[in-house]
Order: sequence, then structure tokens, then C-alpha cells
Amino acid sequence: MSRYYTFSAADAVEYARQFGGVEDPQSLVSAEEVGDGNLNLVFKIRDTAGVSRVIVKQALPYVRCVGESWPLTIDRSRIEAETLIVHAEYCPQHTVKVLHHDPELAVMVQEDLSDHLIWRGELVKGKYYPQAASQLGEYLAQTLFHTSDLYQDAQKKKSEVGRFLNPELCLITEDLFFTDPYIEHERNRFEPALKPEVDALQADMTLRLAVASLKQRFLSNAEALLHGDVHSGSIFVAEGSLKVIDAEFGFYGPIGFDPGSAMGNLLLNYCALPGLVATREAADGREQRLQELRDLWLSFSERFLQLARDKTQDVAFKVPGYAEHFLQQIWHDAVGYCGSELIRRTIGFSQIADLKNIRDDEMRHDCQRHAVSLGQWLIITAPQINDIEALIARIRQNG
Amino acid sequence: MSRYYTFSAADAVEYARQFGGVEDPQSLVSAEEVGDGNLNLVFKIRDTAGVSRVIVKQALPYVRCVGESWPLTIDRSRIEAETLIVHAEYCPQHTVKVLHHDPELAVMVQEDLSDHLIWRGELVKGKYYPQAASQLGEYLAQTLFHTSDLYQDAQKKKSEVGRFLNPELCLITEDLFFTDPYIEHERNRFEPALKPEVDALQADMTLRLAVASLKQRFLSNAEALLHGDVHSGSIFVAEGSLKVIDAEFGFYGPIGFDPGSAMGNLLLNYCALPGLVATREAADGREQRLQELRDLWLSFSERFLQLARDKTQDVAFKVPGYAEHFLQQIWHDAVGYCGSELIRRTIGFSQIADLKNIRDDEMRHDCQRHAVSLGQWLIITAPQINDIEALIARIRQNG
Repeated sequence: MSRYYTFSAADAVEYARQFGGVEDPQSLVSAEEVGDGNLNLVFKIRDTAGVSRVIVKQALPYVRCVGESWPLTIDRSRIEAETLIVHAEYCPQHTVKVLHHDPELAVMVQEDLSDHLIWRGELVKGKYYPQAASQLGEYLAQTLFHTSDLYQDAQKKKSEVGRFLNPELCLITEDLFFTDPYIEHERNRFEPALKPEVDALQADMTLRLAVASLKQRFLSNAEALLHGDVHSGSIFVAEGSLKVIDAEFGFYGPIGFDPGSAMGNLLLNYCALPGLVATREAADGREQRLQELRDLWLSFSERFLQLARDKTQDVAFKVPGYAEHFLQQIWHDAVGYCGSELIRRTIGFSQIADLKNIRDDEMRHDCQRHAVSLGQWLIITAPQINDIEALIARIRQNG
Repeated sequence: MSRYYTFSAADAVEYARQFGGVEDPQSLVSAEEVGDGNLNLVFKIRDTAGVSRVIVKQALPYVRCVGESWPLTIDRSRIEAETLIVHAEYCPQHTVKVLHHDPELAVMVQEDLSDHLIWRGELVKGKYYPQAASQLGEYLAQTLFHTSDLYQDAQKKKSEVGRFLNPELCLITEDLFFTDPYIEHERNRFEPALKPEVDALQADMTLRLAVASLKQRFLSNAEALLHGDVHSGSIFVAEGSLKVIDAEFGFYGPIGFDPGSAMGNLLLNYCALPGLVATREAADGREQRLQELRDLWLSFSERFLQLARDKTQDVAFKVPGYAEHFLQQIWHDAVGYCGSELIRRTIGFSQIADLKNIRDDEMRHDCQRHAVSLGQWLIITAPQINDIEALIARIRQNG
């Protein structure tokens, strides 16, 4: 019999007293449910002074934003905690700290990050965190290099692949990223104004061929333990600090998927800015997004190469030029996955505030069209875009 | 406590009586141990008339050809039986039939194939089986297509990936195929006459870069349930019949590895023939090998495409041209893996009769040099060889 039951606020407080690792557990007295995501209960546990001290997060056995009609395994809670623990081993400074987890209750106690804010919210407001993109690049390089074939023992890696198979959560990505937006599907969400663009996209067989390859690599290429859902809503920022959370999509997949998803979220904000803030501010913000795109990729790629130079274990991968060659493949993959993130966030099931918050209808549709066309272009031309500067130059040309 | 113990001949007879599915079990009276491979005990179980009726195969907990100093998991027996059962589901006509298996005893009872002969032995004698290559292509297409992302449900595939992780046997391939031959290693085996070629090969950084990519894809790309060890010694042939055996290396890997290994074994024989038979016969045999190379690839690729047209399940992969695109990637992979099979069989740990049986020293060394240089060329130029005719034309040019 499973010990699983859905936590009440009182249960969450009790649990935090037991497993929160605070010195004065009895001072924890209240829980505020703050889960704004799609999948889970999230409680801030406050002390007698009203200060939030730890987070208790519990997976629900269904997709929260849809309801009990879409059941979803609570094993994702184990996957999330175990992914974060592995990632924290290699990048503690940018991975939220897991204080305790219980797979059967699908519950996890994690450090409180009330002094941080969700990056997406800040991006939507036009707030700039100049170090965030580099820090995210650092997180991606450390976590992906250390769980890749270059570093991880091949025997250990196979057992890790087995530990992180994550079929149900992967299926969500497989469907929402790579299938639904390219066919007529009831989960797609777009306004009638975008129908012509969506029709054209779904009739674009060159695009769909490239997307099929991206999907095949997502399904088959177990290159490293991905976060699997690196978007600006899974990232907390503060002045000089960045913490990645929400790793329930963790699995061994193609390395380019994580940086590609992150790049996609920067570009979604880039496309949305003219509808979110005043003209001058939007121009500045767009330059910041392009700078972040550059910072993210350069920080990721430079750290990845440095780690490859210093820490590659497998003698076959120490051959001169191999890490650079491998990184170039990751780059091309990342550009493709970046494009698919732009499309699925604009016309697919999981919409984002950057675009949804644009009040003016015509402006919103223009920004959405921009995101869709940029996404199409990225997916189709990914194999020809050779580096980050070529990508940025072309995005500027595109308007 | 494990029930494992090493079978005596009497144990094998008793086991065959119980699980061999023969109508007259008491007629089974003797067992002949015929294992000539590197890893296992293999008993032919004979009846009172001296006719071999079934095979009892048991995995030993070490590498047989090395001894107890190289321990090896007996779980490979489960992997072998389960791989053969999956493959028989999709290609019963060319997969040896598993009648019973017991993972704990690491034992399997399989159909007797005494009316067949090992293909390698026949190739070494210059005996031609005109249908064998096409039949092998059929086996590869059926087994690899049906366990690939095009056909297999993504949820089911992930659990199958977990069932067939096979870390210890994969490590053997990782080392012997992709690492040892390209560095100084005590497991390598070549005569002093070949030292200059081996030195040049190990100093060829372009080659080693390409081999690193082949190894990375072997480690990461879980594209389909491979046999994992398709060489002419794992294949039984008879007039009009072909049966694949010995699947203990089964795992989810890059599809090109299986046809590539098969092609490599045809080309090893091609290189060896001038040392094995008379000049005229060698010329004929070489033409047969090239014809088999063509038959193998065309039979594989045509069946794969036909299956993709008729049976692709995932709507994303039904886009026109995708199967052809995917197959072209498999082709380039196969050419690279073919080259690595040539090299590792010539200078690495696992030698083969085709080359070993050449009595004349100078001739043997010439044939070995040919195999090494052909292997190098295949690995380096794999991305530029566009189809089977281009490959064959170039092999002819090469002498």
C-alpha cells in the first residue's frame, strides 16, 4: 500500500518541522500554498515572525492545470529530487537545495528562495539581471558535462539512464514540443488571427522534416542528465544569484535540448517586448536579450570546453578536437530545439506570460507571428548557423 | 541465494528433457559440449539414435577464452534470451528459436540447427550462399525497424531500454571496438610485421576523431534493440536459410551498428580471400562478397523503407521524406562501424579465422594491411560515401 495522501497546509507544516532542517522546528507555524505551475502543490512554510523558511513541494497524481482527467505519475517527484541532487553535486551554486525527499509521498523539502524572483516575471517587466545568463550557462555546462560520456563512467551512466527513464513526463514534451503544433490538435492554443500562420507552418514539410529529426534525437539520444524543462519560469534570480528549480522532466536526453530551451525563452521575451513595454525600453530590452543569448552560449561553451580539457575520463574522447566537434553538434541541436520552444510556446498547449500579457490584440498577434516565423527559421536553418554571432546577426536582420 | 551452478553434461540432458519441448523427452540421452565461442557452455543434446535434438546454452560467470580472471555477468543470458524473443517476434524466420530460458541459472534451451553451418566457416572455405546476405538484411530491417522510434511506442521503448541496458557486455564493445585498437593496449593482438601500420593508425588524429564520434553514438544513441554482435560467426546458414544466434550483446544502440558490423565481416573475408583460396577462386569470392554487400544493404534499406511507409506509428515521423533521411544517417553510421569492425578484428583482441587461417606469413600480413587500410578509409570518409554503389566502386579501386 502506498503511503501517499495529498498534503493539507497543516500536513505541510508538520512535515517541514520534521524534515526542514531548521534549528527551531516548533517556530514553523503556517503554510501558504503558492503553486502557480501546472503540476504540483507548493507550500511556503512560515515561522512565527511570518518569514518563509523552507518550501514543501508535493506532486499531485494529475496535471493540476487540467484536472484529474489527465493523470500523471507521482514518480516525477522522485525524478525531480534525484535530478536536483545530481545537479547540485556538480553545480551547487545554481541548483536549488533539496533538504529531504520521500518518493512514496511524492514530497520534497527544499530551501526557501523568497529573496529571489522568478526570472520570467522579471523579464516580462523588462528587469535586467546582467549575470543571469552567464550563470545559467555555467549551470548547464557543469550539469551536462559531468553526466555526459566525456566524464561519466559508462557502467554508471547506464544505471543512471535506467534511474531517469521518466516516460510519462518525456511524453508530455514529445507531444507538446514536437507533435501537436505541427498538426491539427485540440491541445493547440492560438487565436483565430494566427490561423493563416499556423496553417502555413503545418503545411511546411521542410520544417516538419527537421522537427521529426529533433524529435527522434529527443527520443533516442541519451547524452546527459538534462533538466528537461529549462524555461525562465523554472529559474529564480536575484542580484548576482541564479537558482534552477523544477526538474521533474529530468532524463538522459540530447544535450542541446537544455541550452536550446533556455535560448528559446530569451527569444520569446525578445519577440514579446514591443508589446510589453514602451518603445525605447523594448529596444533596450531586446539588446539585453541578445546579449544574454551570447552570454548564455559563451559561458556554456567555454566552461564545457574547459571541463572537457581538464576532466574528460574516457581516453577515446581525449583526442584533440573532439570536444570542439561534439560541442558544435550540441550547438546545432540547441538552435533547432530553441526554434521548437518558440513555436510550441506560441501556438501550443503551454502558453507563457511574455506573450499572453500583451494587451493590445494587434500587437500581440504581431509578436506571436514574429515568434512563430523566427522559430521556423531557426529549425530549418539550424545546420547552417555556425555560431552565436551568426545567429544574433540574423535575428537582428529579421527585425 | 542464487540457484546458479555450472551444468555438467548430465545436467544439460536432464534440463533438455524437462524444457526442450520434445515429445519423447526420455529419448534424450547424451550431451556434447560444442561451445567454441568466447563466453559460454553450449551442449548439443542427442537422442538414442545420436541425433542432436535441442541446444542447451549456459553462460559462465567469466570470459571463457580468458578464464576466471575476467569475470562477466551471467545476466547476459537473460539479455540474450529476451533479445532473441523480441527479434523472433518480428523476424521468426531468421532468429534462432528460444524454447525456454531461466535467468537465474543463466541457461537457455534453443532449437537445434545441426542442419546449418556457421557462416564464417563457409566464407573461409569460399562457399557461397547466394540468399544469405538478403536474408540477413531482412532480419536487420525487421528487428531494427520494429524496435525503433518509428514503430515502438515511446513509453514501451523506455521500459525496454531499461530492460536491455547491458552495461558489462557493452563495455566489452566500447573497449575492444573503439578504444584499444587506437592506443597501445595489452589486449591488442598483431604480429610485429604490422607494427608500422598500427603505429600510423594510432597517430592518425583524423581517424581517432571519427572513431570518438562512433563511440559516442554507441554510448548514447538508443535507437533500436540491436543484436549487438552481428558477425559471420553469429550466423548459421543452410541452402536458402539463415538463422541469427548469440544475442548476448543486445541493447538499445545506434541502428547503423548492426548492419555495419555485418558489412565489416563480409569485407574482412574479402580482404582475406587471396590468402585463403586459389587466385581464380579468390577473385570469384571477392565478387560474391561485394554482391553480398550490395544485397545486404539493399535488402535492409528497401525493407526498412517499406516498413516505414506501412507501419510508422508516430505521426511526427510520417512526414514525407523522413524515413529516407533517417535511413541515410543509418547508412553513414553503418559505413563507419563497418570500418571499425575491420580494424578491431585485425589488430585488436578478437581475431577471426578469415585472417588467422592464412598460412603464408607475407600473404597474411598483406591481407591484414589491406583490412586495416580499408577500415581507416571507411571510418574517415563515411560521411562522404553516399550510397552502396559508391562504396563498392571505391573498394574495387582500393584493390
